[in-house]
Amino acid sequence: MHVVVENIERTEPRILDGLAKAGVSTVHEAQGRIGLMQAFMRPIYPGAAIAGSAVTVSIPPADNWMIHVAVEQCREGDILVVAPTSPSDAGYFGELLATSLRSKGVVGLVIEAGCRDIKPLTEMQFPVWSRAVSAQGTVKESLGSVNIPVVCAGVSIEPGDAIIADDDGVCVVRRSGAADILEKSLEREAKEDATRARLKAGEVGLDIYGMRERLQDKGLTYLKDASHLKGE
Amino acid sequence: MHVVVENIERTEPRILDGLAKAGVSTVHEAQGRIGLMQAFMRPIYPGAAIAGSAVTVSIPPADNWMIHVAVEQCREGDILVVAPTSPSDAGYFGELLATSLRSKGVVGLVIEAGCRDIKPLTEMQFPVWSRAVSAQGTVKESLGSVNIPVVCAGVSIEPGDAIIADDDGVCVVRRSGAADILEKSLEREAKEDATRARLKAGEVGLDIYGMRERLQDKGLTYLKDASHLKGE
Amino acid sequence: MHVVVENIERTEPRILDGLAKAGVSTVHEAQGRIGLMQAFMRPIYPGAAIAGSAVTVSIPPADNWMIHVAVEQCREGDILVVAPTSPSDAGYFGELLATSLRSKGVVGLVIEAGCRDIKPLTEMQFPVWSRAVSAQGTVKESLGSVNIPVVCAGVSIEPGDAIIADDDGVCVVRRSGAADILEKSLEREAKEDATRARLKAGEVGLDIYGMRERLQDKGLTYLKDASHLKGE
Amino acid sequence: MHVVVENIERTEPRILDGLAKAGVSTVHEAQGRIGLMQAFMRPIYPGAAIAGSAVTVSIPPADNWMIHVAVEQCREGDILVVAPTSPSDAGYFGELLATSLRSKGVVGLVIEAGCRDIKPLTEMQFPVWSRAVSAQGTVKESLGSVNIPVVCAGVSIEPGDAIIADDDGVCVVRRSGAADILEKSLEREAKEDATRARLKAGEVGLDIYGMRERLQDKGLTYLKDASHLKGE
Amino acid sequence: MHVVVENIERTEPRILDGLAKAGVSTVHEAQGRIGLMQAFMRPIYPGAAIAGSAVTVSIPPADNWMIHVAVEQCREGDILVVAPTSPSDAGYFGELLATSLRSKGVVGLVIEAGCRDIKPLTEMQFPVWSRAVSAQGTVKESLGSVNIPVVCAGVSIEPGDAIIADDDGVCVVRRSGAADILEKSLEREAKEDATRARLKAGEVGLDIYGMRERLQDKGLTYLKDASHLKGE
Amino acid sequence: MHVVVENIERTEPRILDGLAKAGVSTVHEAQGRIGLMQAFMRPIYPGAAIAGSAVTVSIPPADNWMIHVAVEQCREGDILVVAPTSPSDAGYFGELLATSLRSKGVVGLVIEAGCRDIKPLTEMQFPVWSRAVSAQGTVKESLGSVNIPVVCAGVSIEPGDAIIADDDGVCVVRRSGAADILEKSLEREAKEDATRARLKAGEVGLDIYGMRERLQDKGLTYLKDASHLKGE
Repeated sequence: MHVVVENIERTEPRILDGLAKAGVSTVHEAQGRIGLMQAFMRPIYPGAAIAGSAVTVSIPPADNWMIHVAVEQCREGDILVVAPTSPSDAGYFGELLATSLRSKGVVGLVIEAGCRDIKPLTEMQFPVWSRAVSAQGTVKESLGSVNIPVVCAGVSIEPGDAIIADDDGVCVVRRSGAADILEKSLEREAKEDATRARLKAGEVGLDIYGMRERLQDKGLTYLKDASHLKGE
Repeated sequence: MHVVVENIERTEPRILDGLAKAGVSTVHEAQGRIGLMQAFMRPIYPGAAIAGSAVTVSIPPADNWMIHVAVEQCREGDILVVAPTSPSDAGYFGELLATSLRSKGVVGLVIEAGCRDIKPLTEMQFPVWSRAVSAQGTVKESLGSVNIPVVCAGVSIEPGDAIIADDDGVCVVRRSGAADILEKSLEREAKEDATRARLKAGEVGLDIYGMRERLQDKGLTYLKDASHLKGE
Repeated sequence: MHVVVENIERTEPRILDGLAKAGVSTVHEAQGRIGLMQAFMRPIYPGAAIAGSAVTVSIPPADNWMIHVAVEQCREGDILVVAPTSPSDAGYFGELLATSLRSKGVVGLVIEAGCRDIKPLTEMQFPVWSRAVSAQGTVKESLGSVNIPVVCAGVSIEPGDAIIADDDGVCVVRRSGAADILEKSLEREAKEDATRARLKAGEVGLDIYGMRERLQDKGLTYLKDASHLKGE
Repeated sequence: MHVVVENIERTEPRILDGLAKAGVSTVHEAQGRIGLMQAFMRPIYPGAAIAGSAVTVSIPPADNWMIHVAVEQCREGDILVVAPTSPSDAGYFGELLATSLRSKGVVGLVIEAGCRDIKPLTEMQFPVWSRAVSAQGTVKESLGSVNIPVVCAGVSIEPGDAIIADDDGVCVVRRSGAADILEKSLEREAKEDATRARLKAGEVGLDIYGMRERLQDKGLTYLKDASHLKGE
Repeated sequence: MHVVVENIERTEPRILDGLAKAGVSTVHEAQGRIGLMQAFMRPIYPGAAIAGSAVTVSIPPADNWMIHVAVEQCREGDILVVAPTSPSDAGYFGELLATSLRSKGVVGLVIEAGCRDIKPLTEMQFPVWSRAVSAQGTVKESLGSVNIPVVCAGVSIEPGDAIIADDDGVCVVRRSGAADILEKSLEREAKEDATRARLKAGEVGLDIYGMRERLQDKGLTYLKDASHLKGE
Repeated sequence: MHVVVENIERTEPRILDGLAKAGVSTVHEAQGRIGLMQAFMRPIYPGAAIAGSAVTVSIPPADNWMIHVAVEQCREGDILVVAPTSPSDAGYFGELLATSLRSKGVVGLVIEAGCRDIKPLTEMQFPVWSRAVSAQGTVKESLGSVNIPVVCAGVSIEPGDAIIADDDGVCVVRRSGAADILEKSLEREAKEDATRARLKAGEVGLDIYGMRERLQDKGLTYLKDASHLKGE
């Protein structure tokens, strides 16, 4: 059965703002190194850094009909997340759909497939993370679903989950845990600020993180030069 | 037998100008979603958008001798299309060959292999669409042919065909049908202009394209919320 | 046994400067088309062009502990070269480690794995050539070695070898042969300057390089048009 | 937090037997073309066809410690499903672990990573579906979890779900819906038996499935020969 | 316009028999190293070696409707060649369609996409060369064409061309040149028989092919041992 | 300079026999998880398990001339190791060269490129590990070197090193350390024999390897069921 779920709970805008600022790498670490989409998900232009609530689309291969259905379900602050039911790099999405999403206040698109109209999308600064750039057109023949749980680029996503996306990739945070992860991200950032200052001043991580003893215990051996190795 | 065909019929400059402006995605749709090269063909820098008549080169793997032969056959407004007879990502092409092509008025290169000298090519704004960036040098030992039909990145090309290339990829239009495809592209653009205005104003595609009834016929079900799905 | 070799011989700064200016493609050709890393090694932002002495790191998959160990061994003018012992695209390296390397005078990183913090690294203009961009965090559990011979992206590297990296990729030159290769690179550049001027003026490579006779000997056939081929 | 859930509900053996006989392609179709793992999941030898209840393992990259933990949780009729938290093709699994799993009655392994000991595994006929064959050893340093929901090769899996695996790949069926899907699979098979007999006798699908009218409505044109096309 | 061309000229059975016996590698060499499909086209089981006349199908992504249309156009001795208009690895083809093709006398399938039902296809010994094995189902919604020129796995094919397929891959020979290529293949085989006998007896290719002088002219240097190289 | 080194020191036959029996995975572990070629190196047929002394060939892309030169340098018990200087999947090697190598007593081929004549090579049981199967022919135009150090599939190899190859891949052992690695492999096998017996009897690795305490220390938590997790 193909369904469109009209009302979903979203992540709070205040939390989304914080997560966007923290960025993908920090958030991913803060939640225990989970939730990261596969590395083939790349932005179509550099520099964008956003967060939003997921409106999810489960979509047939090479058929973009359901994106039109999903647009209507989107609101201010959402990110559209599109997951084909079978691998496809077709160009499901372009400038007209971006225009429509922007009119709803959507901040970006994440699609495990292809995107086209790269130049106009860059000019209008509508950010897209996709698996491919492809002009290949799609059909409007088969149904899918909107706002059901999906797997996109290796990560399971519930509608309303927080999506963070920047030049490092795309990360997913469960809506219910988002406030907690934001707090942990901020703590991590504060700690990194302190570390950064010390590193800039020339201290090394071996001292800052106190690694020397454990390295020695594991058996790491320092040699003045390579002369002992040549005999091998 | 290895041949160089010296005289080919080219696509009219006026048509090429129009196709370049329409762009790859529009042209590809206008001719019924055919003629698109595979998505691994990427520009070496963003923003270029060109069209030209194809001068084709069938070339052995990791051997760029025939590109030197082909340069002499090029004229104002051409695009050189290079197709190895066996897969190769070697760096067949760099800044010296680009200098030579530019002196002939060639507007760009499409090669199902590697390209090098990315920085100088970017500085001189000579656009290249290639399968790889690679400094790997090539030899000058074996013959190929110039201006015979080739298959490049999955598309069959006749010498003189129109090649359109931009950030979305590369599309091929048969010379004989180019005027017709340009007209269809312009019609498509005009229609999209009207649609864009309505989308910007907040209307959705479901209404503009009249999709609601067909979606209902196919059985798409709208649910107020996900409570009915939880029982599963 | 896991070791850190503390003293290595480095390539002379004067030679490194020359090689950086010559660039990857020229150096690779000048040394007989060897030493080029595989084409999947790409810069995280365009435009950087550097050369440095290799400090090598052999590192376990998805574990970046040894990079911290290696930082301490780096000096002004070095490039850190990181080679996992098993394929991994995890994000071993980010902005904090770059800050630390920069405080030591390191000019860049080459890693056959993933890199993260792309935006801050771009802003601080610390260049990285990597196989992937990935936020995926790594652990600090297992030892590796610093300044032993490694294979990175298909090329064998000795500590202190010259590494040249730009938009065309990454090339390795043996320390002992670096002066000679620089000389050959300069000769090549001088010759190319002369050729470039002639190509710009409209001469073709067929004449400049004297290729016509050899092409004829090999049997290349010029046809006025394609009419003879149609019968096939 | 890393957990091992000790008691899970499993799919009934009778249903598993039926699903194994129906096979991956039929089951996948019967449940509406969902649940199929990505096509890179291949058997290490041809001919195996199994079904079992999923015992799931979420595991760090290049670290197989948790497989040892998971073995103890397995029972007669289970299939172990291993999903790294970050892409890894290391050889997590070999003949010793297979010996251990077999002693518990486990019928096979599904792993989105590498497998080794192909020859002994083939000789003992312990089937494995993996993303790679690799001898690359792994460490035992970091925790993961057993019997939590995982995403493996693009599909979301709950502990106890039915896993079907044969030469066509791997398919997942929710435990709660397994009886229903088995029934639909059997219906599908019955229908296919009838169709097969007619096809064997020379009837074509166009007639058996009544496709001719719809093809005509869509505009499919039959031409006696290609002479009309040549003019193009 | 989507068309089905009903009458095509086919390659003579006698020639096809000869080409199948010669095999892909020999035929590919005999016609000057052209016509070979890309190396990702692999047989679903080892050992099959066939040749047939191409019935071509241009087909939309993830939609197998046109294969049903094509079956009706097939005759004794044909090979069905299926080329999607956009990359797709969906499972377009399985045992039922093979049953139908076999009833028409078709000897095998070549498809630049996915195939399923590997076990039953192996049992009935119906050979398929495909880009992927995938159970992913397809729809029957969009038209394509039968018996028009297509590009499959990088090679241009005309309806009726000779297709040769074995464990080495798939090769295409133009119908009009097939008799000539068969003759050249037989000559090549005869020559190889003589060479094989000499190689078996311990002679080396350097002598049989008279390569020593040319190697010397190019500058190949024989060293008694590696002592001269160590100084580097 | 292109050279052929005629006399190299080889690994002892007795050691090679032992390493072949131990197999790739055991040897790779015994020498500290190094020396393993990348996982794309696959055997052309299953079941072969060999070891031999490396005769190395550095070879240009798509040019197999130097293999003919190398044949003459081979002796009883050698394995030919072929590494292109630039990536190439062309079919450098087939049944005639295998016939020649066999007459010299060579036990197999390892090539980071393509191989053809799969069926005859399987029939004569001459094992090959390659990156691709491809019929694509190569030329005989450019020199390379024989018996110099090469990098093949990510591993550095000296002439005379021990090469071990089976269904798990290909592993390299330095000649000077081969006796030691064989001893460690045998110890490892003896230990595994004891473990296997206990695993077969139903004991689990957690007890045999004494892992329980360390898992507890790291914080692994056992839950009776998933009810505590549902609250998330």
